[in-house]
Amino acid sequence: MKLATLATTDGPRVVAVDTSAAEARYVDLAAVDASLPTSLRGLLATDGGVDRAAAAAEKGLAEGTFVEGDPQAPIPDPGKVICIGLNYRDHAEESGMAIPDEPVCFSKFGNTIVGPGDAIRLPAVSQQVDYEAELVIVIGKRAYGVSQENAFEYVAGYMNGHDVSARDWQIGKPGKQWLLGKTPDTFAPIGPWLVTRDEVADPHALDISLRLNGETMQSGNTREFIFGVDELIAYLTQIMTLEPGDIIFTGTPPGVGMARDPQVFLKPGDDVEVEIAGLGVLANPVVAG
Amino acid sequence: MKLATLATTDGPRVVAVDTSAAEARYVDLAAVDASLPTSLRGLLATDGGVDRAAAAAEKGLAEGTFVEGDPQAPIPDPGKVICIGLNYRDHAEESGMAIPDEPVCFSKFGNTIVGPGDAIRLPAVSQQVDYEAELVIVIGKRAYGVSQENAFEYVAGYMNGHDVSARDWQIGKPGKQWLLGKTPDTFAPIGPWLVTRDEVADPHALDISLRLNGETMQSGNTREFIFGVDELIAYLTQIMTLEPGDIIFTGTPPGVGMARDPQVFLKPGDDVEVEIAGLGVLANPVVAG
Repeated sequence: MKLATLATTDGPRVVAVDTSAAEARYVDLAAVDASLPTSLRGLLATDGGVDRAAAAAEKGLAEGTFVEGDPQAPIPDPGKVICIGLNYRDHAEESGMAIPDEPVCFSKFGNTIVGPGDAIRLPAVSQQVDYEAELVIVIGKRAYGVSQENAFEYVAGYMNGHDVSARDWQIGKPGKQWLLGKTPDTFAPIGPWLVTRDEVADPHALDISLRLNGETMQSGNTREFIFGVDELIAYLTQIMTLEPGDIIFTGTPPGVGMARDPQVFLKPGDDVEVEIAGLGVLANPVVAG
Repeated sequence: MKLATLATTDGPRVVAVDTSAAEARYVDLAAVDASLPTSLRGLLATDGGVDRAAAAAEKGLAEGTFVEGDPQAPIPDPGKVICIGLNYRDHAEESGMAIPDEPVCFSKFGNTIVGPGDAIRLPAVSQQVDYEAELVIVIGKRAYGVSQENAFEYVAGYMNGHDVSARDWQIGKPGKQWLLGKTPDTFAPIGPWLVTRDEVADPHALDISLRLNGETMQSGNTREFIFGVDELIAYLTQIMTLEPGDIIFTGTPPGVGMARDPQVFLKPGDDVEVEIAGLGVLANPVVAG
């Protein structure tokens, strides 16, 4: 099942997405089952919420309970935006960094979240804004002290993500903390959908690519992960509780602009697309801040 | 005015705190003015909310509209927990770090927030949990691109904060990011109250101290700030929008356990108190995770 947050004339709605026809159709889940929460984060936090959403989606599809609107960030308000750095062998190498023996973890704040079609705004104070295509894990169940063996039970699903990065703020500032380079407003496009875990046969065998103005700049596969989805969840939950709707950016494959010769940085008028097999396309224009 | 979030038999309530008597008394603001939000974050996000709270507090105090309960974290759900590192000259020196020429910024997630009296839980995977007393700024108004000159307009007030830090996870991990050492569950006690800006004559002249089992371990004054409250807000809002209820930990004075000889780390059974002049005392016990 594909779950999205749709901007409708009646406000945001959680919908199931039917992509079997040329044009996507959206089933309004709360219109079919009024007991379902109207936010995706709320749905994930509800016991059995995803199963009830699936039942509502099937019924709505049969009955034609569709709604019109534009997909927004599937989860506009994640409680945590956790990011993993240097998680593809090749990208660690192109960045001139050692292959880490534990996950490199940093964060973004919620101000970074935007959806498909939303503009990435370049802050006036950065001259080195770079792109990074990433697979995003969405947490489906409260998790603490989870073993790697059981970790997938805590995954609601996956979506495309774009870890936009102001390199001049990420690197070379006092203290060497990446936060400020990663957390400018609009620097975390996600979507267009959350694809539930049951529809992703192997999250460690997904083609992932990024196109800048139509040209492929990154092309990789999640089999290059240094730390897999299950390892990351086990590692993180040693010290922090994860909640439904928390999201984890899992790192980027090679080809980022900083590592190119000459270097490539985003500029107003650019169009960027992230595409992961089975997760749709996440397209965002770039504008001056 | 002192604002707190009180756990009452009817659920959490936003209250004004009267500390003029030996025992603190709490005015239930929404009981006096039913149009006021019942969360402190909601109150701050309401136009004129603090002024209306002040009017309700005065009326409630005159009429004796008191409520009983225990203070919780004043803001249990801040949208952002921003932290500044190395912001006291002496602490930067004791840490063996250069005096930064720009603020060092890192973050915690919301899972860290606890209130007065709540236990700090030591994760089994850390052997080096350290204490840090900090002045916390509470944002009162949406802020982006704010000048240093106007920055105080965006401050709702101040409170005590404790930036608990697992040094073995903060330092020496691959990638050198501090996040994981700073964001274990319960690692950000705050409170007991938010003191509104009008009652803090000069946030850059406040005595700040930390006691461990009654012994003073940190004793400083915010006049040692490298970057003041207004500078921090101007710096941060160059790249990110701050929202009402966001909080900023402003760094810690000298005396942390890691910098002592021999080093001192927290252990189960310890009691830690943070006290900043005019902001009350924030006391928390330490327990095994």
